Amino acid sequence: MTYCLAIKVDTGLVFASDSRTNAGMDQISSYSKMYAFSSGDDRSFVLLSSGNLATTQGVVNHIRRDLYDLDEAKGIKTFDHLFDVAEYIGELNRHVQGRDCSSPKQGSVNLNASFILGGQIGDQEHEIFLIYPEGNYISVSPTKPYLQIGETKYGKPILDRIITPETKLEDAARCALVSLDSTMRSNLSVGPPFELAICHKDHFKLDHHLTLDIEAPLYQAMTQGWSDGLKQAFTQLPRFEWE
Amino acid sequence: MTYCLAIKVDTGLVFASDSRTNAGMDQISSYSKMYAFSSGDDRSFVLLSSGNLATTQGVVNHIRRDLYDLDEAKGIKTFDHLFDVAEYIGELNRHVQGRDCSSPKQGSVNLNASFILGGQIGDQEHEIFLIYPEGNYISVSPTKPYLQIGETKYGKPILDRIITPETKLEDAARCALVSLDSTMRSNLSVGPPFELAICHKDHFKLDHHLTLDIEAPLYQAMTQGWSDGLKQAFTQLPRFEWE
Repeated sequence: MTYCLAIKVDTGLVFASDSRTNAGMDQISSYSKMYAFSSGDDRSFVLLSSGNLATTQGVVNHIRRDLYDLDEAKGIKTFDHLFDVAEYIGELNRHVQGRDCSSPKQGSVNLNASFILGGQIGDQEHEIFLIYPEGNYISVSPTKPYLQIGETKYGKPILDRIITPETKLEDAARCALVSLDSTMRSNLSVGPPFELAICHKDHFKLDHHLTLDIEAPLYQAMTQGWSDGLKQAFTQLPRFEWE
Repeated sequence: MTYCLAIKVDTGLVFASDSRTNAGMDQISSYSKMYAFSSGDDRSFVLLSSGNLATTQGVVNHIRRDLYDLDEAKGIKTFDHLFDVAEYIGELNRHVQGRDCSSPKQGSVNLNASFILGGQIGDQEHEIFLIYPEGNYISVSPTKPYLQIGETKYGKPILDRIITPETKLEDAARCALVSLDSTMRSNLSVGPPFELAICHKDHFKLDHHLTLDIEAPLYQAMTQGWSDGLKQAFTQLPRFEWE
């Protein structure tokens, strides 16, 4: 499994991902699920992936080929809107899954993949999209300014309580780390290292990109701080009338 | 859907349940999912239910009939061990599901039900069991002293961080309420009123049984206190080096 999330606040975007992949309990690996693409100084994109690793790698390979093929006006360097990029990735997702499921050996393997795409093109709004295995996609709203893929439930309550469009970019990044940490503690299929990327609107680049293993001082301080804070919050809850 | 949980700490048991039931989005009702049974002063039991409402009501009806039929030595008044009670409820669960799935009208309706049984018999240890739709069951361990049924993921991280066998009974009850509240905020299929029951070991009764609607002062104080405490904890997290 996987847990990736992206948050859109007024001042920019936050992306976070775990790196555990598994094909059964006895085949566990670590792969980055965060891909950054830039092309010119008027656009930048981050892609988070979840699902079948062959499908996600296939989609990313096609994106890169189209991007770096400078002889052809193809791929993410050519689109005028971020939703065009979402549709293009959705089409690649359908293409790769459709190709592989036609194999006579395909059997019961689940080839599905989901993606979160975030970024900005020119003077348009920065945006995030969730691209489904079917290739269709959704964006966020001011009342629900984040998207998740993979093991989404454990880490959702903290996002629902903290994140609004007005949240500071660094606070949103801290919240993403807490959400990842909570998920990892409750589910073996989500694991470190965690990646965290922060993009200010109109900067057209990753302003910060951290890869945090579980021993990283920042991660240790964050998770210990959160644990202590929760316990403190807990001791301050009201008593029952008979106590 | 549903969210119920039970916690076993050294000094007793805590049970908590929501009350939302639904058959599709347009058929939503409110039913208690917590059933208390007592029989003599050497035993008491609490049952929490999740899944098909006809199945859970059928199982509870059979338990009650056997309990109150004083002419026959049947049911939960007769067993010497709590796992016997778990096996008996598992058998009833299989029976009711098996009977109803033989209907020619059964079609694709999911008749599954799961239960959490908790209680104590005589001088034996107080205990909790999760009874699966298949009728088999598991108990807890000192490293995982709680059980959940229904929408279990949203409310799991807070249990993992707070609950140990040494947790005070009232603290475990507060944690159960926070776990329910977090789940309700993230998932429409879980809703109030919430029920909370606390049983001290060796008391053989419900020491406290609360039904809390969302406007109840205690519930309001608990959820507001938790929200404030979380935000406070959040502001105390370490800064990134560039801040």
